[in-house]
Formats: sequence, structure tokens, C-alpha cells
Amino acid sequence: MAGVHWLAADWGPASLRVWAMTGHEVQAEGAADLSMEHLGPADFEPALLALADSMLPPGEVTPVLVCGVAGARRGWIEVPYARLPCRPSARRPVRAPSTDPRLSVGILPGLCQTDPPDVMRGEETRVAGFLTIRPDFDGTLCLPGTHPKWVRLCDGRVLAFRTAITGELYRLLVRGSILRRAFDDIWNDRLFQAAVDEAFCHPERIAGTLFSLRAGALLDPPTTGQIRGRLSGLLIGSELAAMRDMWQGRPVAVMGCERLSHLYATALDEQGAEVETIAHDRMTLAGLIATFEQTGAAVLTAPDAQPSML
Amino acid sequence: MAGVHWLAADWGPASLRVWAMTGHEVQAEGAADLSMEHLGPADFEPALLALADSMLPPGEVTPVLVCGVAGARRGWIEVPYARLPCRPSARRPVRAPSTDPRLSVGILPGLCQTDPPDVMRGEETRVAGFLTIRPDFDGTLCLPGTHPKWVRLCDGRVLAFRTAITGELYRLLVRGSILRRAFDDIWNDRLFQAAVDEAFCHPERIAGTLFSLRAGALLDPPTTGQIRGRLSGLLIGSELAAMRDMWQGRPVAVMGCERLSHLYATALDEQGAEVETIAHDRMTLAGLIATFEQTGAAVLTAPDAQPSML
Repeated sequence: MAGVHWLAADWGPASLRVWAMTGHEVQAEGAADLSMEHLGPADFEPALLALADSMLPPGEVTPVLVCGVAGARRGWIEVPYARLPCRPSARRPVRAPSTDPRLSVGILPGLCQTDPPDVMRGEETRVAGFLTIRPDFDGTLCLPGTHPKWVRLCDGRVLAFRTAITGELYRLLVRGSILRRAFDDIWNDRLFQAAVDEAFCHPERIAGTLFSLRAGALLDPPTTGQIRGRLSGLLIGSELAAMRDMWQGRPVAVMGCERLSHLYATALDEQGAEVETIAHDRMTLAGLIATFEQTGAAVLTAPDAQPSML
Repeated sequence: MAGVHWLAADWGPASLRVWAMTGHEVQAEGAADLSMEHLGPADFEPALLALADSMLPPGEVTPVLVCGVAGARRGWIEVPYARLPCRPSARRPVRAPSTDPRLSVGILPGLCQTDPPDVMRGEETRVAGFLTIRPDFDGTLCLPGTHPKWVRLCDGRVLAFRTAITGELYRLLVRGSILRRAFDDIWNDRLFQAAVDEAFCHPERIAGTLFSLRAGALLDPPTTGQIRGRLSGLLIGSELAAMRDMWQGRPVAVMGCERLSHLYATALDEQGAEVETIAHDRMTLAGLIATFEQTGAAVLTAPDAQPSML
């Protein structure tokens, strides 16, 4: 593909997304469902080429900047985590081995923190994207999802972060637990909010509350459909309680899919937080662009970075 | 089988256990793995006969006293829950339809509570068994397991109870969550106890702590094997915090399998509870015997209870 200068790639645990770039402009893009569980180190280059082959200009070496799990222990090549405090767009990619002479692949490190132990691989690039639109944000960025991240930002740097497992726990309980039979598609905002309050104000009760959702549905069948909102509220309320020192007394920005962002923002607002929601579309791409400009281009086009040049 | 006067049956969610009784004496017993999920109402009698057929004296009507999920909504016949306060050995069985003329089947109700909503089906018969050896117990009986029950007892009656889902949550996290890769068979008592303390003293932190178990194992691989004890401790500590008003300031008896009873008793003892462990073997049978003598025999041998007599 003529005019493509570099590729941006977001390697998630279950999907790969690639953009063919000319400077800041997207020329083409592709995405594939790919479970990280089934990939060995030698499978990453073919998986990338399956999406990117037609994007690569012939006879040239194209830099490819990758974020996410490609840098994990079982990934393409293990890339050590960057330590805090960290300016996410200033991370330097690590070269990954490749055999196709058109590729010069660099994988960005994730971030780690030792006390309490925490890690991220991929979300920090979304954080870099957020900082392109809010470079002076001094507060906490909340990224809801399977493993929600709470990221303390100041002066364009990540100072600290914490991860919950709320999304995963919700899915496990809905699919595999005794609660599963009591679910249906009914949603009730009021019950959600009441459950947030309950769990936030009395987080010590959570271990005793989950079974009562099921018991309540058994004893009073009309309440069967009210479990979704209550379970969401209890889990998010517990998360807010656990993350209180991350967000209380500071501006909070919630950046995730529309549905979850709305739930988190509503819950935070009710607990007195100064909260806004941020559209998350293309934030990872924005972070890859910022990082490519700041460090990636230099690393991936350096002469010693191209051992397999044509 | 000659000399058999009645059968006792414990119908659990995943198994059926039957004892052929002469008064208090067990003449024979049998057990089968049977998932409640795969049984329709018409399947219960054949499932019982598959175990009990050879136990039944020919040409006689034998009372069969059943506790557990056979009385659930999707069971043999739905038996309404008994309300609190309740003397568990005084519950009256409800006749279940049967076609074999040798059977006079009665199913015992479970217990329910409305505030907070809670239910049990089967455990209350273990409670009746416990009361045969400790009729004057004034305190809280803890039954650890998949869905641990905390049962407040006084004057031989159940006054209140609460259910957690600690065992189920542990299994879901070990098998299906991001934590699963960090598990091995190492157990560390000290880490267990420290995690109990942490979760009991700061129950609000639990939603932020689980991911850090995985992150800690990633950042410091020697700690990989330390997750089992820590996860058990965090979940049991959270449960103790949620159930604090059930046990604090009262004697606590823990009655379950040896391993779990030891963990709960250790955790409770460290939090200042006056705690003892009780062997749980045959407690359900003891409860069935006590209930048969107090109410079951009369109900199941009454003339109008035997419509299909030989």
C-alpha cells in the first residue's frame, strides 16, 4: 500500500487491531479475534501479517509499533514493565524478532507498580491517548472493563494505579454461580443505585449479600428480574469503596464503553465525586501515534534496528 | 431387606445418600452421584429406587424421610420453606407422590428468612443433628462449604441465619479467572492468617486486592505458589467481616469437613471468637433420625398417608 509510513497495532488478550498510517492519518485498518491463549512466540509475526500484509509498501522497511499483550511473558517477546512515575508516550519500544524483511517491529512496555503489586499492558497506551486531549489533567482516570483500572495522573505522568476485577467477577457470577438462574434482561436504575450505596457505605457486607440476591428471587419471584442491577451495583459499589483513596477529593474522568462509563459515572457522582465521561474511541490509536512520534519512530528506523533490511 | 423399618435419605444438589434403618440402627446404606440439574419431578422416584430397591422389605409400606433439594421448586414436589424461629427436628414432612406401593415418601421443608432474604434446604437437618448432641447450645453454628451457613441457635431453635458464597467464589476464581495461572499446590498458613486479618480489618479493600495477587505473582515469580493461602484468607476474612453480627460475642461451633473447619476455626480464633469444631460425620443422619422420631413416623405411617398401600 503506497504512502503508508508506519503501522500501529493494539494487541489485546482476545483481539488484534492494526492501522496503516501516514503520519497521523489512517490509510487502512483491520481487526481479528485472536485468543492470546492459543499463540506461541512464533505465531505473532504470522498473525500480524495475516492482517497487515497488504498494508505494507513493497521493498521498504515499515516500522510497526505494538502495544498490549504481545509484550507479555508468553507473548512475541517479553518486554519488561516500565516503572512509575511514567510518561506513557515516552516509553521506548523493544525490538521484536521478525523474519519478513518488510517489518521493523517494536513492542511497548506495560506499566508496573510494586506497592501494592499491580500491572497493566495496553491500558497505558489508552492513557497516553487521553493525555493527548487532556495533557494537564490532574486527577484520576477510571477505565472500566473486565479489569477496571484506576490511574492517578499528574503533569502528564502516571503516578500510581490500581486494578479491580469487577467485570470478570460479574461475568463469573452471572454465568457460573448459583445466581445464574435468577437473571433476565430487566434493568432497574433505582436498584442499581441503591446497591451502589449499600456496598459503598457497608463494603464489609458484600460477602453476605450475594446469596441473598438469589434467596430473594426464590422467596419473591417478582424480584427475579431485579438481580442484574443489584449485582452490578453491589460490585461497582464495592470497587468504589476499595478505590476510594484513588478518586476521593480529585477530579475523575471515566473512559470506557458508553454503557459502563455511564454506570461508573452515575455511581461516582452519587458518592460525591467530580466526574466526567470521555469517549474512548480511538484513544489507543491516539496513544500509539503520540508514542510513535515521541520515541517509536526513532527506535524503529535507527540503522541498528533493521537487521533484516532489504 | 428384613427388619428395615424406615429409610432416611439426604438429597443434595449433586448426590443422594440413603440409609436403611431399624430404629436408630443403620442396616445398610447407599450413595450415588446425581446432579439435581438433570432430574425432572418424575425422575426422583426411580432415582431413589435405584439405590433403595433392595433395602425395602417386600409386601410392606416403608416410610422414607427425605431432606434436601428433593423439596425444591424443580424437585420431586415443592415443599414450602418453614419459617423462623424453627425447631428443626419438629418440621413436618410433606408427602411426595410415588407409584411403587412399597413407598411412603415424605420430604422435609427447608428454612427461609425474609430479612435479609435467605434460604436453606438440607443444612437445617444437619443443624437438627447438631442439636441432638448439643441441645442447649446458645450461640452460632457455622457450616463451611460451597455456600457457608451461619446459624444462630438458642433453646433448640434456629433464630436466624445467613449464607455466604465463599466456597463457590473461591472455585470460580481458581478455575475461571485471571488468577488461575498463578495457582499451584503450595499452602502457607502464615499467609492465610495474614490475609484473613487484612480482609477482616479492611473488608472495603477486597475488590482492589484480588488482582494484586496475580500482579504480585507476575512481578515476583517466587510468590506464585502463595496465592492459594492468600485467596482463601481474603475470602474467609471477608466472610467473617460480613457475618460479624452473627458470631461476635457468642460461642461459635464450626461443623464441616476437617480441612475447612480447621481454616474457619483458626480464622475465628484469631479474631477473638470463642470457637470449637464439631465432627460433621453423620450429622445429617442424626437429624433425620431425630426428625423421624418427633414427626416423620407419625406423618408417614398415618392411614391417610398411604394411598398406595398393598
